[in-house]
Amino acid sequence: MNTHKSAGENITVVDATLRDGGIVNNFYFPQGFARALYEADKAAGVDVMEFGYKVSKKLFNVSEFGEWKFCEEGSLRAVVGDKPEKSPKIAVMSDVGRVDLHTEVLPKEQSVIDMYRIATYVRQTEEAAEMINFCHDMGYATSCNIMAISRESEGDLKRCVETICKTPVDVLYIVDSFGSLYEDDIKHVCELYGEAAYKYGKQLGIHAHNNQQLALANTIAAMNAGATWLDATVSGMGRGAGNAFLEGLLGYLRSPRYNINPVLVFIREHINPLKASGVEWGYDVPYLLTGLNGIHPYAAIDFEHDRRTDYENFLAEITAEGYVAPSHR
Amino acid sequence: MNTHKSAGENITVVDATLRDGGIVNNFYFPQGFARALYEADKAAGVDVMEFGYKVSKKLFNVSEFGEWKFCEEGSLRAVVGDKPEKSPKIAVMSDVGRVDLHTEVLPKEQSVIDMYRIATYVRQTEEAAEMINFCHDMGYATSCNIMAISRESEGDLKRCVETICKTPVDVLYIVDSFGSLYEDDIKHVCELYGEAAYKYGKQLGIHAHNNQQLALANTIAAMNAGATWLDATVSGMGRGAGNAFLEGLLGYLRSPRYNINPVLVFIREHINPLKASGVEWGYDVPYLLTGLNGIHPYAAIDFEHDRRTDYENFLAEITAEGYVAPSHR
Repeated sequence: MNTHKSAGENITVVDATLRDGGIVNNFYFPQGFARALYEADKAAGVDVMEFGYKVSKKLFNVSEFGEWKFCEEGSLRAVVGDKPEKSPKIAVMSDVGRVDLHTEVLPKEQSVIDMYRIATYVRQTEEAAEMINFCHDMGYATSCNIMAISRESEGDLKRCVETICKTPVDVLYIVDSFGSLYEDDIKHVCELYGEAAYKYGKQLGIHAHNNQQLALANTIAAMNAGATWLDATVSGMGRGAGNAFLEGLLGYLRSPRYNINPVLVFIREHINPLKASGVEWGYDVPYLLTGLNGIHPYAAIDFEHDRRTDYENFLAEITAEGYVAPSHR
Repeated sequence: MNTHKSAGENITVVDATLRDGGIVNNFYFPQGFARALYEADKAAGVDVMEFGYKVSKKLFNVSEFGEWKFCEEGSLRAVVGDKPEKSPKIAVMSDVGRVDLHTEVLPKEQSVIDMYRIATYVRQTEEAAEMINFCHDMGYATSCNIMAISRESEGDLKRCVETICKTPVDVLYIVDSFGSLYEDDIKHVCELYGEAAYKYGKQLGIHAHNNQQLALANTIAAMNAGATWLDATVSGMGRGAGNAFLEGLLGYLRSPRYNINPVLVFIREHINPLKASGVEWGYDVPYLLTGLNGIHPYAAIDFEHDRRTDYENFLAEITAEGYVAPSHR
């Protein structure tokens, strides 16, 4: 009764393990982890590898973060060499306002980075557009990842999307920051984004979170609704409940372009030891509860950090009138 | 952007924790577990609680299994009393050929059981129909849970469904035994089953497995395609990768009929200690690989039992020509 056919001809698979996974361990990955992941992604046919954030060292205490918080040219070249192969492409994420464009974004010909992924809130749309323009002018491919959309009004989101699509951005990302969206929501957002995106010749992307264990399902739903850029992380490593699993996505796609085996080997050699060392991520009750209520996962991360298990009190707290959810840190 | 509305008016939520979860620990649950679950399900508004299997003590060594492998009247009454409340209804599962109907299935008026769920393979359709008729004649509600359908041809499945629907069965279950189905498959099977089911006035049910972390998504997909009986287990406890999570399903349904809090308390008080005691279930790489390839999870259970992590060899083994997958034990 399996009616499934292979997909993937027009698909771009993005491995965001170092970036979203880095939020779990403040970007302190063991020696050799990044290089092994790069080799695994290359062998697996993964199209893009997101190495981390590119944020300003003036804004963050460098002693508190590993190198993939900053993605300096030297860090990247130590992994990919001076002339990296065409695939996987090398992406970094920059939050609006958190990178000094004029000193920290090099002209493309001086960098091994291929793509800047601009993460923005709706209220920062104008700044995001400026950043996209800047990075594009410096020679990079760009995406715009609009965060925390589950709490935005349709009108605000439409205006944001229209503004972004008028820039030279290549990919417009649907981001389910809180892991709160269902398939119907995903379809709805794909339609809403798609209206502007297709008019301006942009591609759609999806970045899902696994709070309700719907990350892979929502990624597939977005693909079926027109998204061609699909984010995933190895074993779902990512903030809180984590992401869609790269191994599950590659398996689903059943495309000769992708090979699941290098990812399986990477799991044994690098993910299993990372977990054994105490690094924790993935579905748990508090993440379900923030996802169900469209609340930032930091509330659940704090709950887990405090080793609380009074789930019912937590649910009462985050749904109480006047509750102020934590936001981006 | 959350467009989600509440559901649940015509829904029957079935908690299969003791039954499918029992496969994990040979039905040896700690003292008080079943009673606490019954109280939690009652308080949560869960409609049906499946207590375990009803199989013949002549076929299995009773010293190797806890009481919920057999669901004797005394075991059930010790939990629910002699006159249980109307809700949750009390269900047991019987595999075709594994219960002595004439000595082990009491007339309804002598039993607290409300429903027999008949688990069958397509090749056992005639015997399943006989069992349904027998249990119905004894006064019970019945469902028919057709297993391992991903490897059946559409024609065989159609004939099976037509035969079953001609019995007095109440619910026809879509069972994704291997966790191999995708939303499109689920929709397709719902249509195929629905054709006969609606003609004969039967309801559709869904029992999903989480090998690809699609159990909740597939449960929702089945609901949207007409299924009204939805199986889940607390924290997904179940064989191998486990099931759809009851707490996730109740959260999704957003119905005033259901209350997630008693389930959350049960997780803290009974599921967390069970896990801490070493009982293991849930998504892991080998289950993904059997799910992706439509192979019985026992292959992955054996792999895990042997503490192997050579995933790539396992994948080669289970996809090799001539590989004979383990089947029902």
